[in-house]
This record gives sequence, structure tokens and C-alpha cells, in this order.
Amino acid sequence: MKIIRFKYQKKISWGELRKNDVYCFSMSPFKSINYSGLKLKQVDVQFLAPVNPSKVVCVGLNYRGHARELGMADFSEPVIFLKPQSSVIGPGAVIKYPSSVSRLDYEAELALVIGKTCSAVSEEAALEHIFGYTGLNDVTARCIQSRDGQWTRAKSFDTFCPIGPCIETNLKKITNCRIKLYLNSRLKQDGCTSDFVFAIRYLVSFISRVMTLYPGDIISTGTPQGVGPMQRGDTVEVSIEGIGRLKNTVV
Amino acid sequence: MKIIRFKYQKKISWGELRKNDVYCFSMSPFKSINYSGLKLKQVDVQFLAPVNPSKVVCVGLNYRGHARELGMADFSEPVIFLKPQSSVIGPGAVIKYPSSVSRLDYEAELALVIGKTCSAVSEEAALEHIFGYTGLNDVTARCIQSRDGQWTRAKSFDTFCPIGPCIETNLKKITNCRIKLYLNSRLKQDGCTSDFVFAIRYLVSFISRVMTLYPGDIISTGTPQGVGPMQRGDTVEVSIEGIGRLKNTVV
Repeated sequence: MKIIRFKYQKKISWGELRKNDVYCFSMSPFKSINYSGLKLKQVDVQFLAPVNPSKVVCVGLNYRGHARELGMADFSEPVIFLKPQSSVIGPGAVIKYPSSVSRLDYEAELALVIGKTCSAVSEEAALEHIFGYTGLNDVTARCIQSRDGQWTRAKSFDTFCPIGPCIETNLKKITNCRIKLYLNSRLKQDGCTSDFVFAIRYLVSFISRVMTLYPGDIISTGTPQGVGPMQRGDTVEVSIEGIGRLKNTVV
Repeated sequence: MKIIRFKYQKKISWGELRKNDVYCFSMSPFKSINYSGLKLKQVDVQFLAPVNPSKVVCVGLNYRGHARELGMADFSEPVIFLKPQSSVIGPGAVIKYPSSVSRLDYEAELALVIGKTCSAVSEEAALEHIFGYTGLNDVTARCIQSRDGQWTRAKSFDTFCPIGPCIETNLKKITNCRIKLYLNSRLKQDGCTSDFVFAIRYLVSFISRVMTLYPGDIISTGTPQGVGPMQRGDTVEVSIEGIGRLKNTVV
């Protein structure tokens, strides 16, 4: 099932996306899937980020190819960082190119959405705590990332965390899922989760041993090779097999 | 005015602390200061973290003495990192020593609480957006910090962000405020905000140019020299002149 969060007539709601229709829910799907009976046309609603997470935990260098392109060895443990709530935007929203930044990169990622509160969950039980999967663009001011050493500022500007377009609750082929990025319709990243250094169940377990995860929290699983710069006016699309396309423009 | 957030008879409220009494508010002080007429004894309420922030932004190496003790040069710009909401605890709550950690450090800090939503605020206007000041212990797994390079995981474990005991809305001597840390009643850190590399108005302006700050958000201003390890069973107190003592135990 593909779940979207959207604005319609100034009200924020959730619903299931089926072809070109939205079957509205009467409450948050993190509580229960309840249809309100209202059906809308997809073109009439404004897509929002499919969640409003209490935290976005990102994993660095989780594809062998991307670690190699940055000249880094594989890590024995995942390296994590946080993006603030205030950086989250939805499909179609604009990425603001800060005037203080000289190089702004896209990073296409598969993100997972937590469904149940969890702390110190085992790898075996990890997948039960996942609500579904979505796309994420880990927008990064590469110039600041190198200067600071710490990655937080470079990745925390407002609009630097597009998420969407939907949450797929039943993603098939999770271990063999294609992650692509298109810049102005030209293919720039083309990775596959089979190239992961750390599997999803390992990541959920590892991160939940550090911090309690809550429904709606996001874990982003890292980006494949092929990262590169965006310019003002560019259109950038994260395309995840089985989920859809997250499209944003840079202004 | 000293404002606390507390639990009383299973309900979470805010109030003003005057000597040993709590004068309760009828709503969040971020909306308006309104007394409900109820007065409680301080000993009858359970202190909570004085805010539930949407984000905690911390500044690394903002005292000349601490940068020197770590053998680092002063930075030309602040280095920032985030601690997740899930790490926040209040006065009296326990700091959990993770079994995976071999060295756990205290870091006493003066934190400021944002009062008004702000983005790209000037240094001149920065102080108007501050609601007040509180204490913060930036608990850090030093072993993980060195191993990861990135500081996020080392600083993000549950219970690693004690905040309190109160928000002082009218802190005098902000530029000459003593920050102390006591471990089992022995003085371990004794710094002064006059040793800041970056002034508070600069930090608020700098961070607000990266991310929009919301009422209740926390900016922690870095720790003075004298950081060191804690053991299970230790009592750790952050003491900020004009604010009070934030006391926690390690288990």
C-alpha cells in the first residue's frame, strides 16, 4: 500500500494512493488504517512529506561504491548523523540554495519509516518495527561539510531534507532495490541496495541501541555512488523502485 | 523569573519558582505568562526538563580553554551538532551508562531557550528571540566520539541530554557568567562565559541562518575546560550562576 500525507482545502490528512486517486484516512496511519470514505483525485491534493518525524537519522557511507568514490575505507560500524525536523520538505517543494554555499549536492537515499516505538531491538525483530519505505534526498553543502569536519551544519539547512513521495508499506525486493537520481532528467546515480555495507535490520538494531525510535521517525540508509552538484533552476528526482519519484527544484 | 516544567498528580504543567513555592501557569509560557492561581510546594512537584525542544543544537569548542585542552585550534566559525529529542531528561533523572561505552564524560554548558520563531536573524536582533537560559549536561561517550569521527552517535544516547533545573528569563551578567561542574560534590569544571570564542548573539544569528529556530528549541553554548569521566553511581551537577543546579546520577 502506498500512503501519502497531503494538504487539501487547507487541511492536512493521510490517505492511500491508488493509481490517480487518494482514498482518505480518518486518522494517522501510525494509529490505525481507517478509511474515511472520502475519495479525491491525486491532482487535487498537495503532497507533503509523508511523515513529520521527531528525528531523521542518516547513515553515512553505506554503499561500497560511494565509500570508494570518496576515498574512504568501509567502516566497521555505521557512522550516523541527524538532520533537524526543520529541514524536512515534501515532494514538489523547493530546495533553497543558501547564498553562503558554493557547492550543493544531491544524495538519493532509500529511507525507512519507524512504525512502533523501539529501543535496543534485535536484528531478528527489527523489521517488525518498520512501517514502510520512502525516498529521501540528503541535500548536502559539500563545501561546508569539508570545512567543518562535522557533517551536521552542511546537511541541516532548511529544505535540505526532501522526503517522499509516499510510504510503501510492502516494499518487495528490499535487498535488491534500485535507487536512482535524475538531474534535469539525466541519470546521475544508479545504485542498488544489494551494495549496502550494513543491512536494514542491522541499521535499525544498531541505531535503536543508541536512541529510542518513535513512530514516524526516519532512518535514511545512505547514498550510492554518483553524487554531484546542483545549480539554481535544476530539477532533481530521487527515484526508488517500487516507491516512486520524489521531485524537487532548486531555487 | 525562574520558570520550571513539572509533573504533579500525573499532569505536566509549567510554573514560576519563587523560593520554595511554585506558582502555576495556566498555559505554556511560550504563549503567554498566565498564573492559574494554584500554588504548590517545590518539594511536592517532580521537575522535568524545562522544555520539550523540537531540536537541541550544540556548539563544539566554544571556550578557548577547552579547545586548548583537546589540542585544537580555535575555529573561525562555530562547529555545530544536534542531540535528538529522545536524549533529553530533566533534573533528578538518571543518566544511563550504556554497556557498549568505556568512557562517559560530563560537559557542563549554558544553554539558551528560543522564545520566538526565527530564521536568518541579525546579531543585533538575536537576543530578542531568546526566551531565557538554562543548564545542560552534554553527556558524551568519549570512546565513540574518537572512533566515529562524527560526534552524533557519541552524544545521542537516551538520557545524554539533562536540561534544567529552570529557565531564567532575566539572566544578568550573561557575558560574565560562571559555569561549574561538580562530580560527587567535587569541583571539576569552573569556566566563565567571558572565555567564549563566539558570543551568544553571534551563535543565534549564525545558527538561524542555517535552520529555522522554534520556541522551545535549545542552543547549547559549549563546555569550558575540565571535562572528564563519570562512573556508575556518580552524582553530577551542572551549576550555572543565576540559574541553579542541574543534578543527575549515573546508573
